[in-house]
Amino acid sequence: MRRNLRINGARLSSRLQRLAEQGARPDGGVCRLALTDADKAGRDLVVGWMRELGLEVSIDGVGNVVGLRDGREDGAPVMMGSHIDTVATGGPYDGALGVMVGLEVVETLNDAGLVTKLPLAVAFFTNEEGARFQPDMFGSLVFTGALPLEAALATIAVDGAVAGEELRRIGYAGAAPVGKPDVHAYVELHVEQGPTLEAEGFRIGAVEGVQGISWTEFTLTGQSNHAGTTPMRLRHDAGFVAAQIAVFARKLAEDIGGYQVATVGALTLTPNLVNVVAQRALMTVDLRNTDNDKLKEAERRLFAFVAQAAQAEGVTVETRTLARFDPVAFAPHLVARVEEIAREFELPVKRLPSGAGHDAQMLAAVCPSCMIFTPSVGGISHNIKEYTKPEDLAAGADVLLRLVCELAE
Amino acid sequence: MRRNLRINGARLSSRLQRLAEQGARPDGGVCRLALTDADKAGRDLVVGWMRELGLEVSIDGVGNVVGLRDGREDGAPVMMGSHIDTVATGGPYDGALGVMVGLEVVETLNDAGLVTKLPLAVAFFTNEEGARFQPDMFGSLVFTGALPLEAALATIAVDGAVAGEELRRIGYAGAAPVGKPDVHAYVELHVEQGPTLEAEGFRIGAVEGVQGISWTEFTLTGQSNHAGTTPMRLRHDAGFVAAQIAVFARKLAEDIGGYQVATVGALTLTPNLVNVVAQRALMTVDLRNTDNDKLKEAERRLFAFVAQAAQAEGVTVETRTLARFDPVAFAPHLVARVEEIAREFELPVKRLPSGAGHDAQMLAAVCPSCMIFTPSVGGISHNIKEYTKPEDLAAGADVLLRLVCELAE
Repeated sequence: MRRNLRINGARLSSRLQRLAEQGARPDGGVCRLALTDADKAGRDLVVGWMRELGLEVSIDGVGNVVGLRDGREDGAPVMMGSHIDTVATGGPYDGALGVMVGLEVVETLNDAGLVTKLPLAVAFFTNEEGARFQPDMFGSLVFTGALPLEAALATIAVDGAVAGEELRRIGYAGAAPVGKPDVHAYVELHVEQGPTLEAEGFRIGAVEGVQGISWTEFTLTGQSNHAGTTPMRLRHDAGFVAAQIAVFARKLAEDIGGYQVATVGALTLTPNLVNVVAQRALMTVDLRNTDNDKLKEAERRLFAFVAQAAQAEGVTVETRTLARFDPVAFAPHLVARVEEIAREFELPVKRLPSGAGHDAQMLAAVCPSCMIFTPSVGGISHNIKEYTKPEDLAAGADVLLRLVCELAE
Repeated sequence: MRRNLRINGARLSSRLQRLAEQGARPDGGVCRLALTDADKAGRDLVVGWMRELGLEVSIDGVGNVVGLRDGREDGAPVMMGSHIDTVATGGPYDGALGVMVGLEVVETLNDAGLVTKLPLAVAFFTNEEGARFQPDMFGSLVFTGALPLEAALATIAVDGAVAGEELRRIGYAGAAPVGKPDVHAYVELHVEQGPTLEAEGFRIGAVEGVQGISWTEFTLTGQSNHAGTTPMRLRHDAGFVAAQIAVFARKLAEDIGGYQVATVGALTLTPNLVNVVAQRALMTVDLRNTDNDKLKEAERRLFAFVAQAAQAEGVTVETRTLARFDPVAFAPHLVARVEEIAREFELPVKRLPSGAGHDAQMLAAVCPSCMIFTPSVGGISHNIKEYTKPEDLAAGADVLLRLVCELAE
């Protein structure tokens, strides 16, 4: 493979722009919720491009689309991909970048008249965002056999639609088999969706894995009392316990350090009045770490603190696990190679974990997988202001091109 | 005056019960919002009782009702009173007790054939609760000249009604003058609405005054970020600052001690999602103290903490004062006399401040005034479960009877 081969950044940006027109919002953002008419329009556009580029398109039962480019030999393909559904207030890059870069790699090779030894594949997976159907990432879950097809098809959308019916309606209930994919390796280019690369001056992220996630909901029940007539020592203030937990969560993340993060994003008091001690507090704690032992330590310390703080205030606690995923580690040799290629290209590179979930974490269960991050300006994500500079998109695409070509030889 | 004179507890409870039937809720509580049909029914009942007992009834422009009992000599009356409006989920005692005890004192004296030297008066003031019209206590505010009559009449209810029109509609827009009442002394019996007396085994509260109130709303604005991808050190978490403030408020109250209380009863996060760092937190802090210097110290320390915590997190603060009232001290000789009479009756008595506002605090500006508290079971207030034992109602009424008779001689 020619070492000076580069992708065409303008063409990559142009495809991203045209895809963003499908489900365009009046405010400049994109709303292309999974299996809606806008999603169908996006899918049709991408499938059209795949065919123009000579890819052989197959669609499976949950609407995952794979475009295959033959290699010089038979074998499992090196796969590039991501998703093209968005959140309701999305931008042009989240997901779309990983798919458009696959097309760009194919067109670059076509233009250069190059055929890799192993086949290449460009894929997009259904409903990564989970904005319309839960669970999120059900496309890649079904693709890799982690979720039965029937379970995904039976999923009810937030708007009441059934996933299987929507797939048929938009013409993307395909026949390709699912559950035991034969993939040589999987590489996903994605915007970081966080501020680290930009803040620290890096242009490429070599993603080491996806953080484990622990979401817990606490319902704290104390006693509603008059804020004027109830002495402090006689209070059972659910809001006070909730506030202590939120302050503790920050301290916990700082104590454990490394990639540990802790967030109290949701907190609702009842009755939520200026002069009434809160009877109830409903709150969530989001803990994430790349290291499962440390994540478990964080959970242990959090639960101990909650129990102790609630008891001290005479408040009861109900605990509900909303989500729990172990961390996923990407293939170390691929992570190392991303880092090396970036250095060869003189692109400042940082190893980092992904704090958000991605299709790549599902693929990691069935083949060597990795992700490449490009910087998100301001760390802004799931927002119509999502932005990555074109030169950074192109730089990430060039790293992916080099890696994919190596893997396919 | 005969030292063994006692009120009739059964008769007092019976009047409270009959008044509670006006605006009775299906769940056993009372909803007698100011100037509604239920309030009219309550007023008509109480005015009927006043007339039956031989009181001369006058009604002023804001609907305050005063029933006068002549003394042996002319002069300013010793006034007993409170209010008969309730919150939407009220009970039978809040306010009503202070009015019913006045009627009970009059009937007790009538039965005993006793006439005090000074006249006696039984009053109820309009819209003490403020549940329908703001400001609360506008009846006693107008009565004492602290609020112009026209301002109160122009008040718009939460349901859109105009106070002046509602007064005319229910027939309680009277002609008696307001603003310069000639009252010798004012005594108000009220349920504590807090847990202190019951928790500490006291049966009578000698109320030293009404706490000063400082209500502040803080709007904290940070940055909404992904809970997974945003490192702790790059966050501007409005919810975290709010939680720190709530924890600080508790510490502040404990540090200052005495009667200082501090409550964060309302806290709303935006967008309030499990996996998004809060962009905005809207919260209130309710500070109260009997000592205005200490209340000011609490405000100073709170504001300094808020500024420092917000700056450290890179969050901006908007501050809005929702309410600020200086503490009110009741006449020391009356407070002392309440305490002494209770001791003479062998009723365990505690001096304490009122954490809630009462009509007595307005009267305190125009004449020597005081309040007597009876225990609230469980400290429950503004709730259909409001309850005070009949023997405690009677004990408080006997203390009031003795004090009023002394003041009127």
